[in-house]
Amino acid sequence: MAMENMKQFLFALSAAGAFGFVAIIFVLRWVLHFKEGLAWDGGLAEFNWHPVLIVTGFIFLQGIAIIVYRLPWTWQCSKLIMKFIHAGLNLAAFIFAVISMVAVFDFHNAAKIPNMYSLHSWLGLAAVILYGLQLVLGVGLYLIPVTPVPWRAAFMPIHVYSGLFLFTSVIAVALMGITEKLIFGLSNPKYKDSPPEAIFVNVLGILLVVFGALVLWIATRTSWKRPSDQILHSLHTNRGSEDNSKAGPALSELAEGANPEADGDVRKRNSKSES
Amino acid sequence: MAMENMKQFLFALSAAGAFGFVAIIFVLRWVLHFKEGLAWDGGLAEFNWHPVLIVTGFIFLQGIAIIVYRLPWTWQCSKLIMKFIHAGLNLAAFIFAVISMVAVFDFHNAAKIPNMYSLHSWLGLAAVILYGLQLVLGVGLYLIPVTPVPWRAAFMPIHVYSGLFLFTSVIAVALMGITEKLIFGLSNPKYKDSPPEAIFVNVLGILLVVFGALVLWIATRTSWKRPSDQILHSLHTNRGSEDNSKAGPALSELAEGANPEADGDVRKRNSKSES
Repeated sequence: MAMENMKQFLFALSAAGAFGFVAIIFVLRWVLHFKEGLAWDGGLAEFNWHPVLIVTGFIFLQGIAIIVYRLPWTWQCSKLIMKFIHAGLNLAAFIFAVISMVAVFDFHNAAKIPNMYSLHSWLGLAAVILYGLQLVLGVGLYLIPVTPVPWRAAFMPIHVYSGLFLFTSVIAVALMGITEKLIFGLSNPKYKDSPPEAIFVNVLGILLVVFGALVLWIATRTSWKRPSDQILHSLHTNRGSEDNSKAGPALSELAEGANPEADGDVRKRNSKSES
Repeated sequence: MAMENMKQFLFALSAAGAFGFVAIIFVLRWVLHFKEGLAWDGGLAEFNWHPVLIVTGFIFLQGIAIIVYRLPWTWQCSKLIMKFIHAGLNLAAFIFAVISMVAVFDFHNAAKIPNMYSLHSWLGLAAVILYGLQLVLGVGLYLIPVTPVPWRAAFMPIHVYSGLFLFTSVIAVALMGITEKLIFGLSNPKYKDSPPEAIFVNVLGILLVVFGALVLWIATRTSWKRPSDQILHSLHTNRGSEDNSKAGPALSELAEGANPEADGDVRKRNSKSES
């Protein structure tokens, strides 16, 4: 990565980290200061695990999982180790999301509130199920060494698109959840009277949007990709365009890219041309 | 575009069109059958213009505006004409959004409901303002012929990212709006009792998510880009990667790309290599 580009990357990364961190502080202050705190008692304090686990796990950890390949100081690690970190962070995010759903179902059942009636619950459950599917497919295709390389390559654009789409959807579903909770949770003064809690949690919503925007920006800058993945991207980019002469060499690189031991070569070549 | 790729494109395009069209039918049936209909009287029938104009304009028209460059049968039109269509559709979407906001403010003021207290209203207003800014910058940079070509090129990744981010945000804000309206608008039976209107409008929310997902998929497939734009993309892709020898020829293509008369050349070359 050229030096100026690197400064922009570090700025975007720091901003994403800061917004994500402040969002976690905000959700904790929301439930600990404004609401009933945290407990596992079937009451409102159990419900409160829902926003806390979603923000820390399903949003923050998932966001970090998405951009973990972009950290230049990890480019000396083997691709296989990075895949395990990527999968591990996503697995942690998935577990957080499942526990956060159990908290809501427990609370609803104890309070005799119906489950799964709202658009928030429909899209949220769909996101968790599809995220689980993405995780299983991701491990099956990219971590288990038996999968043929052409399959891995063919599925990669779908894996990337689905990952970014699910991340975005989870934030959208969280914004709907915030809306529901502020309407149902605030009375005298109500949400429409803008008490301090309403303003505070609206700001939490904005923090989540900015965090999401930064993660998506970092993830979609091709020049910020791990060097071996840039070659993979340029293969996909040039498929079907006029310059098919490149497909030959790029395909052989792709086979190397799937083999973690070959990464060093690519990186060496890359850093040489940049210096 | 190769033949198989073309089939996939037409399938994705038809699906996007179908989901968008059915979403418009759903929002119309919601306000005309389940709610108070449409009027401009300061009452609930005026509010109903809000979801109708958002779904038809700010979501459907904006979605079409985003993928209009991808339609292969427009590749014989000059790039300048396509830019006018892209800008015109976005301008129409913006006007729909502004009128839809006026309807809500009118309704709120007549009913003495506070304005701008909810996260939905904050993010919605921010989206409309940023969309207006995107429109002004887009026209200033890409339609007014005085802008230097390097500026156009440097700003293009931001223009594309902002466009897709705003489109996604508008759908997220619409889902929050649906949540608010179903909670406030349904009583006896309430939203949590899942009356037919609740189920129907939840399905509208899912239709909007699928429409958004399809538009984002179409917009982000590089091989589905207008041929001259694929060259522009490959310039951006290769900036900072190892193969800098390509930057020379690509830069001259870029200057041509900004000049609509040169498009014919690029297309001819492209279709020759595909035949």
